[in-house]
Amino acid sequence: MNILYDERVDGALHSVDRAEFLHTLQTRLPDLDILHAAEDLKPYECDGLSAYRTTPMLVVLPRHLEEVQSVLRLCHERKVPVVARGAGTGLSGGALPLEKGVLLVMARFNKILEVDPAGRFARVQPGVRNLAISQAAAPYGLYYAPDPSSQIACSIGGNVAENAGGVHCLKYGLTVHNVLKVEMLSVEGERMTLGSDALDAPGFDLLALFTGSEGMLGIITEVTVKLLPKPQVAKVLLAAFDTVEKAGRAVGDIIAAGIIPGGLEMMDNLAIRAAEDFIHAGYPVEAQAILLCELDGVEADVHDDCERVRVLLEQASATEVRLARDEAERVRFWAGRKNAFPAVGRLSPDYYCMDGTIPRRELPHVLGAIAALSAEYNLRVANVFHAGDGNMHPLILFDANTPGELERAEAFGGRILELCVKVGGSITGEHGVGREKINQMCAQFSNDELTLFHAVKAAFDPLGLLNPGKNIPTLHRCAEFGAMHVHHGQLPFPDLERF
Amino acid sequence: MNILYDERVDGALHSVDRAEFLHTLQTRLPDLDILHAAEDLKPYECDGLSAYRTTPMLVVLPRHLEEVQSVLRLCHERKVPVVARGAGTGLSGGALPLEKGVLLVMARFNKILEVDPAGRFARVQPGVRNLAISQAAAPYGLYYAPDPSSQIACSIGGNVAENAGGVHCLKYGLTVHNVLKVEMLSVEGERMTLGSDALDAPGFDLLALFTGSEGMLGIITEVTVKLLPKPQVAKVLLAAFDTVEKAGRAVGDIIAAGIIPGGLEMMDNLAIRAAEDFIHAGYPVEAQAILLCELDGVEADVHDDCERVRVLLEQASATEVRLARDEAERVRFWAGRKNAFPAVGRLSPDYYCMDGTIPRRELPHVLGAIAALSAEYNLRVANVFHAGDGNMHPLILFDANTPGELERAEAFGGRILELCVKVGGSITGEHGVGREKINQMCAQFSNDELTLFHAVKAAFDPLGLLNPGKNIPTLHRCAEFGAMHVHHGQLPFPDLERF
Repeated sequence: MNILYDERVDGALHSVDRAEFLHTLQTRLPDLDILHAAEDLKPYECDGLSAYRTTPMLVVLPRHLEEVQSVLRLCHERKVPVVARGAGTGLSGGALPLEKGVLLVMARFNKILEVDPAGRFARVQPGVRNLAISQAAAPYGLYYAPDPSSQIACSIGGNVAENAGGVHCLKYGLTVHNVLKVEMLSVEGERMTLGSDALDAPGFDLLALFTGSEGMLGIITEVTVKLLPKPQVAKVLLAAFDTVEKAGRAVGDIIAAGIIPGGLEMMDNLAIRAAEDFIHAGYPVEAQAILLCELDGVEADVHDDCERVRVLLEQASATEVRLARDEAERVRFWAGRKNAFPAVGRLSPDYYCMDGTIPRRELPHVLGAIAALSAEYNLRVANVFHAGDGNMHPLILFDANTPGELERAEAFGGRILELCVKVGGSITGEHGVGREKINQMCAQFSNDELTLFHAVKAAFDPLGLLNPGKNIPTLHRCAEFGAMHVHHGQLPFPDLERF
Repeated sequence: MNILYDERVDGALHSVDRAEFLHTLQTRLPDLDILHAAEDLKPYECDGLSAYRTTPMLVVLPRHLEEVQSVLRLCHERKVPVVARGAGTGLSGGALPLEKGVLLVMARFNKILEVDPAGRFARVQPGVRNLAISQAAAPYGLYYAPDPSSQIACSIGGNVAENAGGVHCLKYGLTVHNVLKVEMLSVEGERMTLGSDALDAPGFDLLALFTGSEGMLGIITEVTVKLLPKPQVAKVLLAAFDTVEKAGRAVGDIIAAGIIPGGLEMMDNLAIRAAEDFIHAGYPVEAQAILLCELDGVEADVHDDCERVRVLLEQASATEVRLARDEAERVRFWAGRKNAFPAVGRLSPDYYCMDGTIPRRELPHVLGAIAALSAEYNLRVANVFHAGDGNMHPLILFDANTPGELERAEAFGGRILELCVKVGGSITGEHGVGREKINQMCAQFSNDELTLFHAVKAAFDPLGLLNPGKNIPTLHRCAEFGAMHVHHGQLPFPDLERF
C-alpha cells in the first residue's frame, strides 16, 4: 500500500539505512526506549482504524522533551519521516505508521502539571488521557468539556491533533474551542508556544491552525486546556418518532427555539434495536427514530428547558416523550447511545462508519436520501449520530466475504459523502481525514484551496517529514483517484483489498 | 514615516507610475469608483488610530466581486500593495494606507444576503455593520454576539480581520468563535471558501488562521456568522471597592465560583469620576474601583446567579453592592462604561490607550504595579477594562505639548506591556497589532515564531502585497527597534514625532 506523501519523500526514504539509523539513535540517546524487533512493532501497526496496517521502521517512546528534540533533529538530518502517536484511538488512520518512518509515541508524557481553579485551566502533558483531566479537576467542581466516546483511553495530544469532538460539543465546542495554549516542537526540534494563557494572542492564530492538523505541523509537548464548571443538573429526554424525517425536523425545531442542549443525539430503528438487545437501555424498539436530548445547567433553567423541549417534541409529532426519571435511567439512556457502535457491530460481520457533516436544516432530506440509497444498494444502514451538530455517522452494514458487498458498501458510502458535500457539509466532522479520507478531500476542496493547504504545510515543514500521506492529498493524487471517483458515486479506495 | 513591509516591497513600489496605473485601472474598470484627487484621499488617511496618517496612492470603492478581483489582479501584476478597509474604526492602524499602495474600501458590500433562523446563521457582505446583523436577526429572537464598542459603525469584515471582541466576549467568545464561513479572494484574485456551513471542516483550520490576520492573507468578500438566541433576562450588579486590588481579586472569585457573567467590567477611580461627570451614570465617585457584572439567561438562573455574585462580592469586601433596579438603570450603568474612553478624554489633552491581556489571577498584582508606575512616571492612568477576560485598557493621560510627557507616557506604556508579557499575557487583546504594535511583537514572540508567521504569510501572499508593514515585524525590524527597547522599558516608537 503506497501511503507516501509524494515522490520527494519517497525518494528520501529509499536512501535510509535502517540498521545504521537505529545504531545512531541508540548511540546518541542511550536512555531512549526504542522498539525495533518485529514482535515489538506489531502492536503499533495501526490505530483505531484497524483496516489499515503498516509496520513502522522503528518505534520510539521518549520520556523527556530533550529526547523528542533529539529524535526530531536526527530524523530531520536524515530526512526520515515522523508519525506522532498518542493513545492510538483515532478512527481515520491519522497515526498509521510508515514502513520507512519513525513512530513517535508520546504516551509516556502523561503528567498533569497544573490545575488552576481560579484561572480555570489545566496544564498537562500530551499523553494525559482526556478523562483524567476531568478527574483531576473534579475536586474543584470543574471539568474538561470535549468528550469523545473514547475519552477513557484517548489522549489530549491526540484530541488536539484531531480536533476531537464528542456528545457535548454542540454546547461546549470542539477541542479548538477548549484549548488555550500548546507547547510544540517544530520538525527541526525548535520549541514554540502557540496561543497564550490570556485571552487571544496577537499575530496569526497558529493555535487554531495547529489544532486538527493531524501531526503534520509539529509535535505537541504540552497542552493548556480550559476547565468549565460542572453543570449543577443534567436531565435527558427521550423522544420516539415514526419516521426519521420527523426526528430530523424536531432537531431543527429545538435549536431554532433558542435552546442549546448539552447533547442532542439521534438513533434510527436499526441502531435502537441493536443497542436495546446489547445494553437494555429501555428504548422503544418499535420507533423508527429516537432523539436523546440532554439539558444541563442550574436546576430551574433545566426544568424550564425540559418543558419547552417536551412541547416542541410533541408538536413535531413524537409518538412518545419520556424524561429519565432518575440518574440511573439517565445513565442507562446514554449507555445505549455510547455503545451503539459495538451494538451495531453485532448485527453484521463488517460495517463501515461514515463521519459526514451537514447543515442541520438538511437532516430530514439527507436521512430520507440515505434510506433510499440503502434500498438501492440493498445494504442495511444504521444511523447513530450527533444530530444537533449535523454530524452524521451512518454505519453501512456489509459482509466482506460476500462477493460484491464490499464494493457496494464503498459505492454507497461515496454517495453519502457526495451528498454531504453537495448540501454544504463536509466529509468529516470529528474523526479527521487521516489516511482514510485523504482522497475524499479532493471532492471537498478546489485545487486552489489544496495548493494553499500545501503552502501552509510547507511553512511549517518544508521537506514534508511530519506525517506524510495524511490529511492533505497532492493534486496529482486528486487528479488520479479523487474527485472523479466520488463524482461517480464511488469511494476512491484503490487499496481497499486490505480492508 | 517608513511603514513599508520590507525592502522587497519598497523596491517594487518605487517602480510604479501612479498616473499610468490609474489610467490602466480606469480603462479596465470604467464603472469602478476611484478616488485620486488629494481632497478625496484626505478622509482615508487614517483609521480609528488617527495618530498615524498616510495619504494613499489611490482609493477604490468596488461594488461587485468581479471589480475586486480585477483590482487585485492588476495590483498583483504590477506588484502594487493593497490595504483593505472596512468601516475604518480599528484602533491599531490596521487599515492605515500606503503612500504607494491601493486602499481597497469594502464599505459598499453592505447587503445582508440571508438570515436563517433554523440554521441560526446569517450570511452577509463584509461591509455590513456589526449591529445591523443583530437588527436583522432580532425578529427571530436572535442576535450576533460579539459587540465591540464601535458596533454601531464597525463592519463585520473588519471584525473578522481584527478578530474583534467586546464587552460580552467573556461568555460568548471573540469573532473567531462566532464565524462559520468566509468567502475570500486570494492576492491573485482567486475565490476561496474557508470554513463551512456545517460543524468543523476538514484540512487545516484556515478560517481561524484567517480570522484576525489583519488583511494580510486575503480579501473578505462574504461572511457567515452564527446567531444566538437573545437572553430572556439581563441584570447588572454594580460593586464598589476601596482598593483596585480587592476588585481584581473579586473578579477571580466570581469566575472561580463557576459563574460565567455576560460581561464583567472594571473601572478605577479616575475612570469612575470621568464617566460620572460626563454621563451621570449614578456611580459611587468615592470608590477606588467598581465592577459591573452582567448576568444573562433565563429568569430563575439569572436570579440565582445574582444572589451568588452578591455574596461573593460582599465576601471580597465590596463597600457597596447594587443591583440595577430596572432596565433604565441597567442601561445607565452600561452607558457610563461604554463612554468611559471619551469621558477620560475630557480630563487630558492626550491619552494613550493600551490593550494588554493578562491571566486573570494576575489582575491584583498588575493593577498594583500600574499604580506604582503611575507614581514613578508622574502620569495619571485610568483603568477601564474587560476584567473578566483579563483584557486591560489602561489609559495613560499626558499632554504632548508639555516637554517630556510624551516620552514618559511611552516609557510607562512600555513597562505595562513588558509586565503583561512577563506574567504570561499578551500585548493586545482585541484591538489588533496593526501598525501600532508591530514593534512590540518582537517582545511577544521569538525569532523562530516570527519566522513561522512569515512563512505562513508567504503561503498566502508570496510577494507580501497584502497590507505590508502591519501585524508581523521583520526580524530585521526586531533587531533594530524591538525587543531591546521594550526590555529597557520603552515603547519602540521611532516615528512618534507624528503622534
